[in-house]
Amino acid sequence: MTSHLVTGVAELVTHDERFSGPLGVLPDAALVVDDGRVAWVGPASSAPDADRRTDVDGRAVLPGFVDSHTHLVFAGDRADEFAHRMAGARYTGGGIARTVAATRAATDDELRTRLAALVAEARAQGTTTLEVKSGYGLDVAHEERLLRLAREVTTETTFLGAHVVPPGVDRGEYLALVTGPMLAACAPHARWADVFCEPGTPLAFDRDEAHAVLTAAASAGLGLRVHGNQLRPGPGARLAVEVGAASVDHATHLDDADVTALADAARHGGPVVTLLPGVELSTRSPYPDARRLLDAGVEVALATDCNPGTCFSTSMPLMVALGVAHLRMTVEQAVRAATLGGARALRRDDVGHLRVGARADLCVLDAPSVAHLAYRPGVPLARTLTLD
Amino acid sequence: MTSHLVTGVAELVTHDERFSGPLGVLPDAALVVDDGRVAWVGPASSAPDADRRTDVDGRAVLPGFVDSHTHLVFAGDRADEFAHRMAGARYTGGGIARTVAATRAATDDELRTRLAALVAEARAQGTTTLEVKSGYGLDVAHEERLLRLAREVTTETTFLGAHVVPPGVDRGEYLALVTGPMLAACAPHARWADVFCEPGTPLAFDRDEAHAVLTAAASAGLGLRVHGNQLRPGPGARLAVEVGAASVDHATHLDDADVTALADAARHGGPVVTLLPGVELSTRSPYPDARRLLDAGVEVALATDCNPGTCFSTSMPLMVALGVAHLRMTVEQAVRAATLGGARALRRDDVGHLRVGARADLCVLDAPSVAHLAYRPGVPLARTLTLD
Repeated sequence: MTSHLVTGVAELVTHDERFSGPLGVLPDAALVVDDGRVAWVGPASSAPDADRRTDVDGRAVLPGFVDSHTHLVFAGDRADEFAHRMAGARYTGGGIARTVAATRAATDDELRTRLAALVAEARAQGTTTLEVKSGYGLDVAHEERLLRLAREVTTETTFLGAHVVPPGVDRGEYLALVTGPMLAACAPHARWADVFCEPGTPLAFDRDEAHAVLTAAASAGLGLRVHGNQLRPGPGARLAVEVGAASVDHATHLDDADVTALADAARHGGPVVTLLPGVELSTRSPYPDARRLLDAGVEVALATDCNPGTCFSTSMPLMVALGVAHLRMTVEQAVRAATLGGARALRRDDVGHLRVGARADLCVLDAPSVAHLAYRPGVPLARTLTLD
Repeated sequence: MTSHLVTGVAELVTHDERFSGPLGVLPDAALVVDDGRVAWVGPASSAPDADRRTDVDGRAVLPGFVDSHTHLVFAGDRADEFAHRMAGARYTGGGIARTVAATRAATDDELRTRLAALVAEARAQGTTTLEVKSGYGLDVAHEERLLRLAREVTTETTFLGAHVVPPGVDRGEYLALVTGPMLAACAPHARWADVFCEPGTPLAFDRDEAHAVLTAAASAGLGLRVHGNQLRPGPGARLAVEVGAASVDHATHLDDADVTALADAARHGGPVVTLLPGVELSTRSPYPDARRLLDAGVEVALATDCNPGTCFSTSMPLMVALGVAHLRMTVEQAVRAATLGGARALRRDDVGHLRVGARADLCVLDAPSVAHLAYRPGVPLARTLTLD
């Protein structure tokens, strides 16, 4: 294999505790990649030789972003619904049915082309690991199809048959389908299962329903994730703790008991809390308070939730900027949440950091420090560094 | 001259009242550019011939963004100060002195290179008209130098000697300088004069001081602009009305009397209100309510305020997204504010629209409708369309 030396790194974020500050930062750094893995990290002045060399000319380099929550396999868009909502109409969640209809009607190749375009768009902004959920099929054949297509672009595929109860379908029958034949068809293509646990939202699932979905998924060998506490306080966060989920996502409305339960669980590998501030931005909703979770000792991830209804963004740099501006995170906390936090939400130890042995997934900024991700909001500074 | 036909426009924003809706939108449109001006606009099906042809392949086209408020001529950056503030320290405005020192120390060519990079960055995101202020020189020679350099990239140059009183300089003496020798040296390079009117901020200017600055500038033949009502209620907005300023900028804190005065003035060409939501984002401050102004009949512009202290963004697409999400604007209102609103804030009738006769400043989106500017926040969809 060819080894590759990256030089001219003004600031390198490693998440290696041997180096400086909460992000393990090395100034004036270099890094050697061998066989797709980080083989050496250190000061530029003591860099070893390698077969090839790339000079990033005074730019900052960080681990590629880990976007641990997306709904990237779908057809159509709902820009008109968005514009209408921003002119005064309220979001009710009913719009999902429209995406389900468009997605079912699309061919595999149409879905594949769209998915590839969104993956490329994310990659162009520095994202190197993506989780992708199903959830716009909502019957056995279509959920299985979406996961099969998602698996073509990532190992981090999530079965979300329990996204919503399809309109006109009996709840009990749908739950039996999701925990029975649909799960059986989907599990071979999925690493994870997820459920939209939001009592009070008619088509979402209450605590006992969500518990049944997660228990069945665990029995089928899937790891667990929970959409919870998005629109109001509810049982999602504590259910995630109870079932040993890797992550509870959204978590906009947490009460003190939720935070305590998450903090207690965090001491022995409990759920990461994945915050999705693009959803609050795109739905004009109150933002969650990340600092409260971080101060309690909870690991926080930032992700896009990229989906055609409530946040059609692939931009992890925007999530970092919103994390700092609106979730009260420090720059270091937001950068960690978008990299190492996402990796932990996916229980991956090979991505989200640049310690020796990590996958050589590199994000480079047209800026001398990672603070610029939040300091220069909206400016397209980040891209994935390809070594060839 | 060569005429140029642009085809394949899925949605064309013209601001021409002959066409549909508040933005004068034409679907399935084409446009002819001749001698740098819009020569014809209409349905693709009736497009005339031209010497050359560019197909934008189903994308949306709108007037290039008019960023009517920037501070683009400076040296250095203050990313460390930003990160520190986001970790808990409060912004006091004192950081301007650091940029003044770095800017004074830079050579003309260093400033020129940095300015050109920022102009190119803005242009790459669809901005085709930029206003540029001085204000980091704060003595006669340096203010004159900054305006001379700004004039190399735009006709919309603004003398902002009255940005702050330099620390250690007597207020009265500085005011005499700004309204006397500094104004005389700067006026030949400037179209506009501006003043930071914010009583309660020690280094900014109170109403009477601001009035003196503006009166002197008007006598020297400059058009007038006011920074006002940024940090608290104050006299800026009503002063802008009184002196016939083209725009009052920031305007975060307006009381009912301010809105009434602006609405009354709007009936006979009174000040545009230029909102700068990137500043609120970057300083964790409450956003202004654009809808209140729009409902009262006031023309609103959106601009970046790009500067190294309180918003280091050149991204007009982000300002549109923030306008919709946080200033309560509709998509149409935000798109208008970033184009026609900015043009009106600069009293320009040749830019900010695509009626026949306008400058052919075109922004093209990697999306089929302009709603995507807010629907897909953070995604770099917009670029300036170059016809060659």
